[in-house]
Amino acid sequence: MDASSLTDCHNLIKPYILRTPVLHSPALDSLTGTELYFKCENFQEMGAYKIRGAVHALLQLTEEERAGGVVTHSSGNFAQALALAGSKLGIKATIVMPATASEFKKRAVREYGGAIVECPPTNEAREAAATAIQKETGATFIHPSNDMRVILGQGTACMELLEEQPGLDAIFVPVGGGGLLAGTAMAAHYFGGDCRVIAGEPYEADDAYRSFYSGTLQGNTTTNTIADGLKTMLGDNSFPLIRKYAHAIVRVTEPEIIKAMRLLWERLKITAEPSSAVAMAALISKKDEFQGQRIGLIISGGNVDLDLLPF
Amino acid sequence: MDASSLTDCHNLIKPYILRTPVLHSPALDSLTGTELYFKCENFQEMGAYKIRGAVHALLQLTEEERAGGVVTHSSGNFAQALALAGSKLGIKATIVMPATASEFKKRAVREYGGAIVECPPTNEAREAAATAIQKETGATFIHPSNDMRVILGQGTACMELLEEQPGLDAIFVPVGGGGLLAGTAMAAHYFGGDCRVIAGEPYEADDAYRSFYSGTLQGNTTTNTIADGLKTMLGDNSFPLIRKYAHAIVRVTEPEIIKAMRLLWERLKITAEPSSAVAMAALISKKDEFQGQRIGLIISGGNVDLDLLPF
Repeated sequence: MDASSLTDCHNLIKPYILRTPVLHSPALDSLTGTELYFKCENFQEMGAYKIRGAVHALLQLTEEERAGGVVTHSSGNFAQALALAGSKLGIKATIVMPATASEFKKRAVREYGGAIVECPPTNEAREAAATAIQKETGATFIHPSNDMRVILGQGTACMELLEEQPGLDAIFVPVGGGGLLAGTAMAAHYFGGDCRVIAGEPYEADDAYRSFYSGTLQGNTTTNTIADGLKTMLGDNSFPLIRKYAHAIVRVTEPEIIKAMRLLWERLKITAEPSSAVAMAALISKKDEFQGQRIGLIISGGNVDLDLLPF
Repeated sequence: MDASSLTDCHNLIKPYILRTPVLHSPALDSLTGTELYFKCENFQEMGAYKIRGAVHALLQLTEEERAGGVVTHSSGNFAQALALAGSKLGIKATIVMPATASEFKKRAVREYGGAIVECPPTNEAREAAATAIQKETGATFIHPSNDMRVILGQGTACMELLEEQPGLDAIFVPVGGGGLLAGTAMAAHYFGGDCRVIAGEPYEADDAYRSFYSGTLQGNTTTNTIADGLKTMLGDNSFPLIRKYAHAIVRVTEPEIIKAMRLLWERLKITAEPSSAVAMAALISKKDEFQGQRIGLIISGGNVDLDLLPF
């Protein structure tokens, strides 16, 4: 893994993804005392950066693997991303989703052409279901955040942000499974000079914080957070990259997340999902350390059920 | 008024406004059967295109006029726009607002440095209040939509859209006081080739529709619409320009507006105010006539009180 792995990946996926805009808000600058640049991945075709890694993983498959299709387990944005990437590339995508996932999320996966297999809402059940599908159909398993092809893809949002705003002092991202954080930290290392990468994480699902600072991979003890995209855990590929290239993980409370989310909606005029607001909340809680600095922030996604807004 | 009036205006105001991005959504393309480009003026500093006209009007003042300050009457986005433009240019801006205007709107005006004078919520009262302020302070009155300097400024959003997406077949905008429609229609005439300009208007405030098709200026009989930015009426400057350069006005119902607004929030991932959704609703209601065409749509603003969402 080096700079050329990322550059090759970016060139490969470019025809299949949108070049999302970078927004700037004088109001949020003066509120935080920083100069803030928002890379709006909520404007990606399926509403999140996850399409980058999904497309990249599928483009790495052999002809034989493509014919066998792919399978993943996700109730979140990677489900939609793999479904859409599969439909763009003519590869069958099967998504294992908990039977308890909302109709809102299932409908989105179906709209993008994904096949859904339901399972009980436990880690064991979803892994068993995915394994069974691999055996039965010969499908290739693509992990939503721990697959190296996926991690490289997720790093390309940071590359575009740094192309447009070189010389950033720091970039904030949310951390759940760690694919975005690992990819971003690697990309900032190769293309960002001294740019630091800092992740926001909910107190209520703080496995990455505890893993990062203890040096050993820890699980979540709770996942009682509104940031439903961040309930997942680091893996054996994402964790070493995060340890090596990321600079800090900052935990935030649920009220801080909701307040930051409202700020993004009201001031930046975008629909950002709670996971994106976690990165903003982390910056706000640490703003005293970043006064006058040029900060990037990746708005990871905008998939929100408007019937379930926290405000 | 010719092409150079618009070009001069654009060059003058550029340092004071944001170059807003143009968004594109494959999902909304396939939903409408058109190729849609959204000029996102909700991302302007105070959340709407109105800053363009406000800055342009202030830049045209003489030194003496600048010293005397400006006054307008508006309970909507022009109030914020004139306050912000005034604070950027060091010109005192007084805004006559109905005492019944929401705290949400008053706070925004104050945040941007505007002075508020309250009046009873009638047309007569607000005009009387503005006239009194002119007399007492020597302030110059700037009409929110009928001032020619304002109309020229509002046309610059269309110029930027056409720069980025030349050869559009049509551009949809909302119509209230007619400043945006007049400016856009003029700009499309000079810079858009055969590009038609079509306005959306609520049935519940359809003065522009009736004026346009009857040939004489008509008033509103009701203003019972969620699109609070469109309750105003055409004026003696905006109306002749609209008659000359615009191509059609399409009326939409309140449920159509709310449905289009939700679509913009869910699919385009932006917070667009109901007035912007009126343009989208107009396109949707006429989509059969625009199949396969390249369409621009100006998202006029994103100032929404999240506590008062219609969904």
